[in-house]
Amino acid sequence: MTAVETDEAIHEGAGTVTRVLDPVAALAELAPIGRDEARGGWSRHLLDDADQKMREWFFNTAVSLGLDVEGDRNANQWAAWSPEGATGPAVGTGSHLDSVPGGGPLDGPLGVVSSLAAVSRLMDEGHRPTRPIRIANFAEEEGARFGVPCLGSQLLCGELAAERVGPLTDSAGVSASEVLREAGFDPQTIGADPSRLADLAMYVELHVEQGRQLAPLDAPVGLATGILAHGRWRVTITGRGDHAGATELDSRHDPMLVASSAIQAARARALLADPRTKARATVGKLQVVPGGSNAIASEVRLWLDARAEHDDEVRALVADVVADARKAARGEGCEIEVSEESFSTRVTFDVDLTDRLHAAISPHLGIVPRIPTGAGHDAGILAGYIPTAMLFVRNPDGVSHSPHEGASDDDIRAGVGALTDALRALTSPEHP
Amino acid sequence: MTAVETDEAIHEGAGTVTRVLDPVAALAELAPIGRDEARGGWSRHLLDDADQKMREWFFNTAVSLGLDVEGDRNANQWAAWSPEGATGPAVGTGSHLDSVPGGGPLDGPLGVVSSLAAVSRLMDEGHRPTRPIRIANFAEEEGARFGVPCLGSQLLCGELAAERVGPLTDSAGVSASEVLREAGFDPQTIGADPSRLADLAMYVELHVEQGRQLAPLDAPVGLATGILAHGRWRVTITGRGDHAGATELDSRHDPMLVASSAIQAARARALLADPRTKARATVGKLQVVPGGSNAIASEVRLWLDARAEHDDEVRALVADVVADARKAARGEGCEIEVSEESFSTRVTFDVDLTDRLHAAISPHLGIVPRIPTGAGHDAGILAGYIPTAMLFVRNPDGVSHSPHEGASDDDIRAGVGALTDALRALTSPEHP
Repeated sequence: MTAVETDEAIHEGAGTVTRVLDPVAALAELAPIGRDEARGGWSRHLLDDADQKMREWFFNTAVSLGLDVEGDRNANQWAAWSPEGATGPAVGTGSHLDSVPGGGPLDGPLGVVSSLAAVSRLMDEGHRPTRPIRIANFAEEEGARFGVPCLGSQLLCGELAAERVGPLTDSAGVSASEVLREAGFDPQTIGADPSRLADLAMYVELHVEQGRQLAPLDAPVGLATGILAHGRWRVTITGRGDHAGATELDSRHDPMLVASSAIQAARARALLADPRTKARATVGKLQVVPGGSNAIASEVRLWLDARAEHDDEVRALVADVVADARKAARGEGCEIEVSEESFSTRVTFDVDLTDRLHAAISPHLGIVPRIPTGAGHDAGILAGYIPTAMLFVRNPDGVSHSPHEGASDDDIRAGVGALTDALRALTSPEHP
Repeated sequence: MTAVETDEAIHEGAGTVTRVLDPVAALAELAPIGRDEARGGWSRHLLDDADQKMREWFFNTAVSLGLDVEGDRNANQWAAWSPEGATGPAVGTGSHLDSVPGGGPLDGPLGVVSSLAAVSRLMDEGHRPTRPIRIANFAEEEGARFGVPCLGSQLLCGELAAERVGPLTDSAGVSASEVLREAGFDPQTIGADPSRLADLAMYVELHVEQGRQLAPLDAPVGLATGILAHGRWRVTITGRGDHAGATELDSRHDPMLVASSAIQAARARALLADPRTKARATVGKLQVVPGGSNAIASEVRLWLDARAEHDDEVRALVADVVADARKAARGEGCEIEVSEESFSTRVTFDVDLTDRLHAAISPHLGIVPRIPTGAGHDAGILAGYIPTAMLFVRNPDGVSHSPHEGASDDDIRAGVGALTDALRALTSPEHP
């Protein structure tokens, strides 16, 4: 890396060169990385070419801001601002730079970019933090490559047994062990990292809003109350592959019919649940074997994503959907197998920390609504170990996990302003 | 090609080296080519590595038997036996060497192998044909790469406009033009080949049975009466991609729900049709965009395969399924678009030719049932132009388009015996 390359990550303000990172310009730098021509949007998955370019950008940009950058053994990246006078465990912030397949530009990157931008502003204004600030780029938050969301933060906290991760395979059949080894990690040493966790006193994640709760309230920024309990289940339906033209209807064992019933049961069972449980169930990924247009499928694999306010409500919802699918499988003479790929218990963010954030950011923003979310986040994992809170930046259409996800430039800058206020307050003498 | 390589394609009989090709040994030679580890079975698609190896095998084996081999401009291969005394248009036979994705070992190869074996037996016994015999390996019969079945025979007969073929793309986005050019064909000159068609007086295709009609009749070989009318339609359903966790049920536009309705309508509408129409409809191929487990799909593409005795019954069936799908799309707030990828009108094989085959083969076989089939074949295309007939070899489980497709070695040899008898009779002086 040359000094010139380093300097490219520094943006010019109105007339004067400063070391303040402009979040909108930084997002524009990331926009060419990992474009997905087939799906639209962006596909950046753990340690693939696009993810590696995102990581390089994180490294170069953080170094150019004068931060210390290091990787941990779980493929997470960390950038630290730890000037003289900053002692004790850090205030953690950040998010992730990976994406769902064909995702939007902000889910993940907005939080990382905003964290770097906020720290650059604090440096620029001469703030003297009482604690270090550590910015995380968490690995594989979306779980798009190996099926386990929040992989990096779960490993860090010891929520995910290291032995479970190595054998996971991606869609090309490559194991996580191979991918990690190829990228220079030792698959033998991944897993719980208590000393790094102990380096964090608290964690604040900024994220683009998913859903549309802030727009009607005319609020550019909100605070999270909690995350719905959620999980994903893989459903494998085995029938009998055969000729689509030559096989009579009454001798078919077609797993596509059973898959259809499961998809419809997911919607129907979620609608039947008490609305207060916020139950929702979705099938967004489905694979057909062999997948020929003139062949009855031999196997269909689908992934059921289910969420609700409380853990037992999610489990009841999944049990109902699976029961409906089993019934359909019996009728069609197919076999069905269900395995839990992940489960994230309900998260309530730290009320005290959230109150402190509210006090710090509301003077600049006015109304700062507190809203729940159905989306999982690394902050949800960390919340089980340290005080954790989240900021959301208004998403005018509410669309997420889609190329159409968005936020206005003004709101993005308002988010950085709020995060700057928050980090300043949390590292000031009056907030020990 | 060396003489040794040529000789490898010649099999040893009991004790004496002969030039008679054993069909079971020949199929064993083909078994390693194009194995599909992911789906099971075999995947051999137009001019891919596996298909090229199949073509090399065809060339080498035919040359080793003393046949003249050439390719035509539509990527079909031809091997001719045209000894002195053989005049006029030929008796055509053969089949195809491509497969569906994850298909079985016999659908296609059995016919090609049996044709080569039958001709080698006629040569061995000193038969002097009155007409040449031409063995075809037709290109892309399954339509697995570019979506159009019987591509090679349709082009040959001028049923498919050459301009339509070049722009077709495979799943990797590569156009048929590029694939043809890369393999040494000129995409500008594909299309109707009347002089080559005029070289054929008639066509007889042997194929593994698809369905299970021969087993209950205790018959190793059957004759085809006709092929159901059939076609495939691509249905594209567009919804709104969004976050599976954050999006409330009542603001979703999920194309997976509409796809489910279409799949169920295909089965239900086929069941509702008059059983005499032999109506059947299948969805065996489905693609989800973006396909993330935590993302509501933005688009689902599915392929509807529909068949029935008569053309208008197929059209009515498709119209009913599409109407049901459109209704579901309206309910979910999705868009739906339907395009016909192929349509093959009902085929009745030549009764006179079939009678002649029956007379030739029944002395060795006893009962030779005449059965209809729901599967399309190149013979079905040629039937529109020259007298055409088909032989089926018993498939004990009836399974096809699947790795579990099969026929016993005895039945395979019985099929070759029947085809030998048929080709002998059709090229004897008493059958002008």
